[in-house]
Amino acid sequence: MSILIKNIELNATKQDILIEGNTISKIAPCIEFPADKIIDGTGKAAVPGLVNGHTHAAMTLMRGYADDMPLMPWLEQKIWPLEQKLNEEDVYWGAKLACLEMIKTGTTLMVDMYHYYNGTARAVEEMGIRAMLTFAGFDFNNPEFTELFKSNIEKYFNNLPAYSTRIEFAMGPHAIYTVSTNLMIWIKDFARVNGLRITTHLSETTDEVSNSLKTFGMSPVHYLNSIGFLGPNVSLAHCIHLEDDEIKLLADNGCQVVHNPASNLKLVSGNRFRYSDLKKAGVTVGIGTDGACSGNNLDMYEAMKLASLNGKLAWNDPTIWNADETFAAATEVAEAITGFRTGKIKEGFLADISLVDLNRPEMIPNFHLISNLVYSANGSVVDTVICDGKVLMENRHVPGEEEIMRKANEVAHDLVSR
Amino acid sequence: MSILIKNIELNATKQDILIEGNTISKIAPCIEFPADKIIDGTGKAAVPGLVNGHTHAAMTLMRGYADDMPLMPWLEQKIWPLEQKLNEEDVYWGAKLACLEMIKTGTTLMVDMYHYYNGTARAVEEMGIRAMLTFAGFDFNNPEFTELFKSNIEKYFNNLPAYSTRIEFAMGPHAIYTVSTNLMIWIKDFARVNGLRITTHLSETTDEVSNSLKTFGMSPVHYLNSIGFLGPNVSLAHCIHLEDDEIKLLADNGCQVVHNPASNLKLVSGNRFRYSDLKKAGVTVGIGTDGACSGNNLDMYEAMKLASLNGKLAWNDPTIWNADETFAAATEVAEAITGFRTGKIKEGFLADISLVDLNRPEMIPNFHLISNLVYSANGSVVDTVICDGKVLMENRHVPGEEEIMRKANEVAHDLVSR
Repeated sequence: MSILIKNIELNATKQDILIEGNTISKIAPCIEFPADKIIDGTGKAAVPGLVNGHTHAAMTLMRGYADDMPLMPWLEQKIWPLEQKLNEEDVYWGAKLACLEMIKTGTTLMVDMYHYYNGTARAVEEMGIRAMLTFAGFDFNNPEFTELFKSNIEKYFNNLPAYSTRIEFAMGPHAIYTVSTNLMIWIKDFARVNGLRITTHLSETTDEVSNSLKTFGMSPVHYLNSIGFLGPNVSLAHCIHLEDDEIKLLADNGCQVVHNPASNLKLVSGNRFRYSDLKKAGVTVGIGTDGACSGNNLDMYEAMKLASLNGKLAWNDPTIWNADETFAAATEVAEAITGFRTGKIKEGFLADISLVDLNRPEMIPNFHLISNLVYSANGSVVDTVICDGKVLMENRHVPGEEEIMRKANEVAHDLVSR
Repeated sequence: MSILIKNIELNATKQDILIEGNTISKIAPCIEFPADKIIDGTGKAAVPGLVNGHTHAAMTLMRGYADDMPLMPWLEQKIWPLEQKLNEEDVYWGAKLACLEMIKTGTTLMVDMYHYYNGTARAVEEMGIRAMLTFAGFDFNNPEFTELFKSNIEKYFNNLPAYSTRIEFAMGPHAIYTVSTNLMIWIKDFARVNGLRITTHLSETTDEVSNSLKTFGMSPVHYLNSIGFLGPNVSLAHCIHLEDDEIKLLADNGCQVVHNPASNLKLVSGNRFRYSDLKKAGVTVGIGTDGACSGNNLDMYEAMKLASLNGKLAWNDPTIWNADETFAAATEVAEAITGFRTGKIKEGFLADISLVDLNRPEMIPNFHLISNLVYSANGSVVDTVICDGKVLMENRHVPGEEEIMRKANEVAHDLVSR
């Protein structure tokens, strides 16, 4: 299968882009090639598929179910009781809806952490996007749960269904306050032995930090470092509350950090994400939407704008999180965070591309495309999405979308009334 | 002309809405009426046309021209030099683009302050939205400019073209640091004599506040109060930096305040907008996008989300700016801020209504429509827009939109290279 995109705006020039198999094979003006499919890019710009660095896809089912509440009552009275009723089929439909929403808004790669791995994996497989998927690991310091999780992971990993290469299996311990030291160490060893990546929540709230100091006598990053957890295979979601020495440890160990501005604002976790200090130290910084019941959507365009605008305000500096580096945090970080060679439109990279419609009022004038994308656009500017060399959306239509929306809506309403 | 909207979701019920002339004449299930036009509302919800409480419409021409800069170099090196080159035709096309963007995102009423009143007024007249329009007033304490502005306003006001009732003439002194006390007093007297509303920028930055203390020996609100400026016909944009006694003065005088979160974040003016205190004091609070070269768009859905999320974070309280009250700040405030009887879908109100498409991934599930609108949606969920009883957009298409985008783009590029 080959796709030839003609006359597309790419980095402020007119180009053709040739895709062969799942790879971008050639970028040049006026490519002649007998491609299976030709896409006319006139009036559009090619943009790398966006990277949602942290989400809980199936939580789309709980969108709008509980808002405007403090974190703990929100979790304890609303979210956790619903999650206890979830089954794999629910997660499958929630993740289908999430994939649909991400495709519609130009995201082709997500890092997910949730329950019922196979529910999410099946959804991703069918929807055609790329994903680093994890089992959310919890044991709440209960040794029985610790052993259960270990045996489940081993059993599962050794019998992985034959998912496509778009799906990466990774480890996802939930957080240092829900996972015992015993399990954390086992997870990082399991990941090292099997060459797996790990992602976890870290330093999301000041409570988490003070509990870490109380429980471990150390701040969260120092604690993870003390058990040998940190490494280039580790990405950490949130990291709102970091000290200087923690940033140095993250840099020294090659960890990545994923900022989730919408969730951090809505749940008042904090807005002083130390972007400039992390960048200066050499830490890769990505952006995520978090789950749709804190976010409340999966639109990475919106996440970029929130990251940039709040970063500027929080540090009283309008020059930081500029449009180009904000856009890079939602694209070029893909390989560092997931290993997938994507997030750039370059020969040899995976063919994960969206085509953005330039004939929209919010995209005019087009003085600086990246500025328009970060500060003015939302995900609805995306017209066409290609992932792994296959067209997932054309003219804003995803095959089967009506059925997905209908069914996910049913499942969500059934879940709350069950 | 009459329009009958059938089977529409309104306040979580199914209703028909009958529009006769420019007014909502009846709301009930199953209305039988031989309307000139029937709209099938199945799968859609009726939402009041949103109210953009503060903008500079024609600045769409400068969208993305200068970002990521501190306020003063941004103004002095980039924006003001461009504005000096503007002519009425430029403003007309910039405002046409702005109206198009607002219609596409469900806004039917704006409060505008800019140069070349007639350019903006012609655009609004043709595009069909509703607007309270002002001349931006400046004299920079130069008595020559003061007299020039006075005579211009008098001349203009006494020879107003016969614009439709959708356009309200109001006074728009720019700010206390660009308008002399002499001119401020003249403007407020002119407004009182002629029954006009006034809008101005106030307390946008800490510099403005400290300059006010230095120049007038008073904080900005006290200064305006001391010259008899405050009253129920006055709306104040920004008001980020208010003291308790200033809030009391605003409440006592019946002034309204319009919050512009995107601009305040991007230009790092501040995020501690005192929403709860203003509400408690009884001050009407609206929301605006500000101009598209600080915003960078005119999407009130985004402005609502930014206001709410940042309000929660700034005051460390996830319960404030809840979805319902945030939505009210973008709708129900219309009459208080502009006098137009709109912003609610109720019998007897002006027929300014948008129909929102519920079959979108980000609108599913629909546990609480207003939560989805404020936290998950963006303006692209709007399918149909009616203003003053006329259909301005159907199926997301506005007649003539291609020409407006083409021409506004040309004008913007010509402006920067002129």
